[in-house]
Amino acid sequence: MEAQALMQKILRVENMNQVILNKVQGELVIRAEELEQTLRDPARRDSLPFKEVLSLLEYPALLESADAERLFPKDAIARAKSILHDIPGGLGAYSNSRGERTVREHVAEFISERDGFACDMEDVFLTDGASAGVVKILQCLIRDEKDGILIPIPQYPLYSATIPMLGGTQLKYYLDEEKGWSLNIAELESIVEQALAKGVTPRAMVVINPGNPTGQCLDTANMQQVIEFCHRRRVLLMADEVYQANSYIRPFTSFKKVLRSMGEAYAGFELVSFHSVSKGVIGECGHRGGYMELVGLDIAVKQQIYKLASISLCPNIAGQVVVDLMVRPPKPGDDSHDQFQRETQATFESLKKRAGLLATALNQLEGVTCNPAEGAMYLFPRIRLPQRAIDEAKRLCRAPDVFYCFALLDATGFGQRDGTFHFRTTFLPQEEQIRSVVAAMAAFHARFMDQWRE
Amino acid sequence: MEAQALMQKILRVENMNQVILNKVQGELVIRAEELEQTLRDPARRDSLPFKEVLSLLEYPALLESADAERLFPKDAIARAKSILHDIPGGLGAYSNSRGERTVREHVAEFISERDGFACDMEDVFLTDGASAGVVKILQCLIRDEKDGILIPIPQYPLYSATIPMLGGTQLKYYLDEEKGWSLNIAELESIVEQALAKGVTPRAMVVINPGNPTGQCLDTANMQQVIEFCHRRRVLLMADEVYQANSYIRPFTSFKKVLRSMGEAYAGFELVSFHSVSKGVIGECGHRGGYMELVGLDIAVKQQIYKLASISLCPNIAGQVVVDLMVRPPKPGDDSHDQFQRETQATFESLKKRAGLLATALNQLEGVTCNPAEGAMYLFPRIRLPQRAIDEAKRLCRAPDVFYCFALLDATGFGQRDGTFHFRTTFLPQEEQIRSVVAAMAAFHARFMDQWRE
Repeated sequence: MEAQALMQKILRVENMNQVILNKVQGELVIRAEELEQTLRDPARRDSLPFKEVLSLLEYPALLESADAERLFPKDAIARAKSILHDIPGGLGAYSNSRGERTVREHVAEFISERDGFACDMEDVFLTDGASAGVVKILQCLIRDEKDGILIPIPQYPLYSATIPMLGGTQLKYYLDEEKGWSLNIAELESIVEQALAKGVTPRAMVVINPGNPTGQCLDTANMQQVIEFCHRRRVLLMADEVYQANSYIRPFTSFKKVLRSMGEAYAGFELVSFHSVSKGVIGECGHRGGYMELVGLDIAVKQQIYKLASISLCPNIAGQVVVDLMVRPPKPGDDSHDQFQRETQATFESLKKRAGLLATALNQLEGVTCNPAEGAMYLFPRIRLPQRAIDEAKRLCRAPDVFYCFALLDATGFGQRDGTFHFRTTFLPQEEQIRSVVAAMAAFHARFMDQWRE
Repeated sequence: MEAQALMQKILRVENMNQVILNKVQGELVIRAEELEQTLRDPARRDSLPFKEVLSLLEYPALLESADAERLFPKDAIARAKSILHDIPGGLGAYSNSRGERTVREHVAEFISERDGFACDMEDVFLTDGASAGVVKILQCLIRDEKDGILIPIPQYPLYSATIPMLGGTQLKYYLDEEKGWSLNIAELESIVEQALAKGVTPRAMVVINPGNPTGQCLDTANMQQVIEFCHRRRVLLMADEVYQANSYIRPFTSFKKVLRSMGEAYAGFELVSFHSVSKGVIGECGHRGGYMELVGLDIAVKQQIYKLASISLCPNIAGQVVVDLMVRPPKPGDDSHDQFQRETQATFESLKKRAGLLATALNQLEGVTCNPAEGAMYLFPRIRLPQRAIDEAKRLCRAPDVFYCFALLDATGFGQRDGTFHFRTTFLPQEEQIRSVVAAMAAFHARFMDQWRE
């Protein structure tokens, strides 16, 4: 062996950024994301016009072909032509760092129509998935460890990884499982008081609605309370609404809509909301498209966010186009409309049905309770494990739920209230698969409980 | 007006992250990136097989069509089928956070063949453009302001923006304009000594080769000196080689190749090199594809980088596919081969010719000197401005070169040695345009010098 190979490396785990080492969830997140690869069922978009439009945009010469009308629906051709008119560089050139102007206009129209309240395209920034937008806002907010960000527990690992990486302080609030994973304002107030006492200023609050991993949809009253709380405490609200097309029990209500319904007293309220093409019934996660709306933000701050966006040049253009297609689905009369409606409706109904099926099955397991999935793509059942199983887990230096999940060949990396045990489960598998998954899970669970029963 | 609208905003420029405000270049960067949108000439890839393959991948049903063989080159069809076999989820599903396995394999083959030295696919991570990779490596290296990163001046704003944002210290070294923008090892040593004296540990060094904005290509002897320096000083080498396909005078030599040619004594050397689909003769910047090779890095550190990559889920899949197409250009015998060769060669020769044309013209202007562009897509001419122009700029609180560039309706945001004035200019416009650009620039320059002559 030569000299340097035997020497210590320059960059080692013990001298690298310790935040990555200690605060970013490891193995389980990597396993989880590898599992997520399988979540999107490619068959789902078989007849949506998305892929036809993207195909034409990648190879615009097809538009000139005599076969175009035979191979592509009329509205896909028209859509591709109109996008090429607006984005003459096509999918291969850089765009403005905020995203293509025309896509931002369409997003603003979509939001205005969704909420019944105006959205200004100057408030819309396109992003590579929702995550890139979340990181930019946190970068603006966090100066040092005296800046705190309220995040829900359970939550999605993006927040718990990014906040410490930027040097800020996580202020964790618990969702109230007994009240459908809603937010408890008294608890929020007490967390703010405790933070202030330690010299930490709560600067923003993250709400994930519909929830991940909990699957809840907040009701309007609770959302109003959250806005009042943020207003009173002067906390910027970050609304992660990437599951907005996955609200199964009642129509989705955005924080922007609730805010605007609260009248003039809240007109200057600062809210950033995030959306993505990765969820919904389209699930175009591989294209990394998303947007954020900067409601009520200071113009000078928006310019700084623009500057920040310019460092990474621009969101990928194909992802921007998928955002455009998402916010402008086929209209009645379009060639693709009927099939699009039929298919998205079927996907939606099937997700809803699978959510119910899985929740019912889980609630029948010994020691398991599970709130119904009102939204998103997940259930977050609570398991009461036998003490012997908990002791065995302790002996193996594993958390009891991790012990359970490894045994189930699945794993969870989501936080929860101390002393409670949950695992996140998705209802994305197709119906016939869900039934066999449920059967296998029930059989495993019965064996596990028998093995560890006191 | 209602109450809160009159109140101060929660998030204001004075209470946001001041690093963004002060260290990220503003207006000029945004203007520069808006100009960059126009840099890519969409005509350039008119008959490359890239767009055909991407088109088929977006809409795989086309592969089943009876017209496929008439509409698409045979090798594009074969390529699309092989990619779909390897990536069954297509462009719409998440991949592994390091990127699709098959693309990483192909990148490793490309590097091995390019350098004549083996590359292990486990060292290859795909990224959204090169920038995303650069940020991840800097995140790992920087713990606090005591960690320094050596960066070239002039440089590309990504580095000067990201290092302070992560809380690290920039250690700026000057490229030697008189010696073709090469690196001066004595200066590097003295910067290291000064940093150590201030308690700052130099942890890594960025080299951009071919250079941006300078356009130089380092010779092998200088590259060996850089490697020896990094080895001696225990500094990780970050080689930004995104312009590797734009080396006009001699064949591109990678740092990896020079390193491996230096034998066993350097076998454990830590080098991260970056490449992108945005430059070269393909210029697919809108797809945000790229990769990094982690040479000699500790396995445990690579796992942490993997974990870090998992936070943002995965690089966009279309961008990954463009990387695949870039590293596996059509081979002799493929349908697309001859046209691909002809076109890429023509683009390359034309870029080279335009570089020469522009450098010659610039060197003829009064007070302007310009090194020849050996690589990349830029020239970085030096202008000696009349004292009256410098005084007038001072009066307007503008840097003299900014004053000059605003007058030229163009702007530069790149650093330079104090007291010298340069502007970055690209030779991307087509030949006929270059001639008129040169004529207009010469006319402007003559007027400007006359106006401000002492």
